[in-house]
Amino acid sequence: MKVNGTPMRTIWVSDDGEAVDIIDQTKLPFEFETVRLETVQEAAHAIFDMLVRGAPLIGATAAYGMALAMKDDPSDENLAHASKVLFEARPTAVNLRWAIEDQKALLEPLKPEKRFDAAWKRAADIADEDVSMCSSIGDHGKDLIQIAYEKAGKSRPVNILTHCNAGWLATVDWGTAIAPIYKAHDAGIPVHVWVDETRPRNQGASLTAWELGQHGVPHTVIVDNAGGHLMQHGKVDLCIVGTDRTTRTGDVCNKIGTYLKALAAHDNKVPFYVALPGPTIDWKLDDGFKIPIEERDDTEVTRMNGKDRDGVVRSVRIVAEGSKGGNPAFDVTPARLVTKLITERGVCEASESGLRSLFPEMPEAWS
Amino acid sequence: MKVNGTPMRTIWVSDDGEAVDIIDQTKLPFEFETVRLETVQEAAHAIFDMLVRGAPLIGATAAYGMALAMKDDPSDENLAHASKVLFEARPTAVNLRWAIEDQKALLEPLKPEKRFDAAWKRAADIADEDVSMCSSIGDHGKDLIQIAYEKAGKSRPVNILTHCNAGWLATVDWGTAIAPIYKAHDAGIPVHVWVDETRPRNQGASLTAWELGQHGVPHTVIVDNAGGHLMQHGKVDLCIVGTDRTTRTGDVCNKIGTYLKALAAHDNKVPFYVALPGPTIDWKLDDGFKIPIEERDDTEVTRMNGKDRDGVVRSVRIVAEGSKGGNPAFDVTPARLVTKLITERGVCEASESGLRSLFPEMPEAWS
Repeated sequence: MKVNGTPMRTIWVSDDGEAVDIIDQTKLPFEFETVRLETVQEAAHAIFDMLVRGAPLIGATAAYGMALAMKDDPSDENLAHASKVLFEARPTAVNLRWAIEDQKALLEPLKPEKRFDAAWKRAADIADEDVSMCSSIGDHGKDLIQIAYEKAGKSRPVNILTHCNAGWLATVDWGTAIAPIYKAHDAGIPVHVWVDETRPRNQGASLTAWELGQHGVPHTVIVDNAGGHLMQHGKVDLCIVGTDRTTRTGDVCNKIGTYLKALAAHDNKVPFYVALPGPTIDWKLDDGFKIPIEERDDTEVTRMNGKDRDGVVRSVRIVAEGSKGGNPAFDVTPARLVTKLITERGVCEASESGLRSLFPEMPEAWS
Repeated sequence: MKVNGTPMRTIWVSDDGEAVDIIDQTKLPFEFETVRLETVQEAAHAIFDMLVRGAPLIGATAAYGMALAMKDDPSDENLAHASKVLFEARPTAVNLRWAIEDQKALLEPLKPEKRFDAAWKRAADIADEDVSMCSSIGDHGKDLIQIAYEKAGKSRPVNILTHCNAGWLATVDWGTAIAPIYKAHDAGIPVHVWVDETRPRNQGASLTAWELGQHGVPHTVIVDNAGGHLMQHGKVDLCIVGTDRTTRTGDVCNKIGTYLKALAAHDNKVPFYVALPGPTIDWKLDDGFKIPIEERDDTEVTRMNGKDRDGVVRSVRIVAEGSKGGNPAFDVTPARLVTKLITERGVCEASESGLRSLFPEMPEAWS
């Protein structure tokens, strides 16, 4: 999507073709800086220090990291070493592991001198495949926004609420939950986005607001408390959120607070859509409440980063001294509260039969 | 309640009997400072600049402000002038207006030389009446916590979730929603409080956490997004919140985000209690959605105050530059989501018949 009017991705081959460039997302929304990654160590560092974030982008970065490792030393030893370095940058990231394994499987049978070219091409393909998948999610979701626009008599912008950042910054381009919004905006459907701040890490106020602003999409940042009130007063036509993990039965595990918005949407008959790439469906899981929820460091709750009046980014304590914080990172929204799932293959009910209608090739064995 | 181990109120007569002292709540939770009010101008300033906050405390401060005005100049002119100065400090505060009118009605018929003593005594009575009302709310609410403790087999602390600050800092002592928690804690019932941060003004993370910490009540600050997840996992036994305004039909207008917690409580069969002093019931209103909701300045959303690592309190911008914020201050929780109302006269259903059973003297004319 656009930054300062220029179309960009979150990761791209450098002008000299020798490295990849990324956006340092830890600096957003206050500074826009790109960083050049020349080695696998630099790629691992970008993942570990969260310069890149979001499962698809982490996967693409790891794929390029494997390729960069093959440039100067395509030996078996270095292939194994690069896999280890990247894997240890974020051991819990499923897409990271997948991208490493995918490259390893491709490269191991090849002669060393063939490895760099093959890995570089495969990394580009992985990035392109993600863009294609997100673009398709966007196209399918756009139709739902079009329906809402027509329902409102085409008389005003469609008001869409989103939580956290499931935008292009979390993917290679387009995003998941925000892809339909970009597609609608680019197609001339007037939209306005209510951006949940998304405490404690504020991905809405910082990342979603930034990327919507850069692309020119009208939006308003609200505290996470406000969405229910807006829905009670007819100010939200639909919600779209992303998901970290979806059970085959349609339960959705996403950023903490998603469940509260789904409850409010249900109570006010506002459609609640969840956008997801097929590969994030966990076909082995039949119950979202079986997903263990990470409890993160309480400084995310007790401290906040922001830019002071002199332009300096500072961390400040916002909780009474001596009080501790609790910080569950995700919650589970049961399928009964999800109106539809939006995937790259189309829109379906949030249920096992709904998902199987789009992914008929998935084995029945787990049922 | 206690501060540094010493019992305090939020407003009290100075040691020399010539003035009143208050806590400067704008400095909390980072500094504990008391301020001496010697004149009606100083009382008005304390209200205008929010050194005191919460309807009952504003009322008590205004009552003392009227008395201070009568000390040096008890003339009719100064009585009128003092009323005007105080009223203009916060024209929308119902308790402020009530306290001023109450003092005026008492003082106008009196000879000027009698006015100071009468006003001083009346202000003390207003403060004491508030303490008595909140204490009764606490006693009635404590019984509900006792029931939850017994239901849990007295095997663990009772987990209570609260939103915003309806504690003693908002009243003269005890608080409304927090009064039952103090009463239970002081009676030896083990409690643990989940304190909602309460964006955008963070009254939970700053004020509620501070006062619970000072009184020694175990608590954990959570982001407003987390409560639903905790309820899904049985980690909340009951919720208690306050209310700014309650319709005679039991709808509750309280700090933004209250409605989302009520929805989650309902979805997880967690009791959702609302504590309120009788005078905050609006007997003329039969529908909470008729209450106009104040839209506050968007800098409350886009900026945040906190203490940096050098101990300096700073305001930092937390939203992407160029993005605007939306800031509705309250939401309405319909009576159907409220388990019981807790008043100074006892506990009742959130309904007109429930409220009338406790307040039978209220005229039927509005029905």
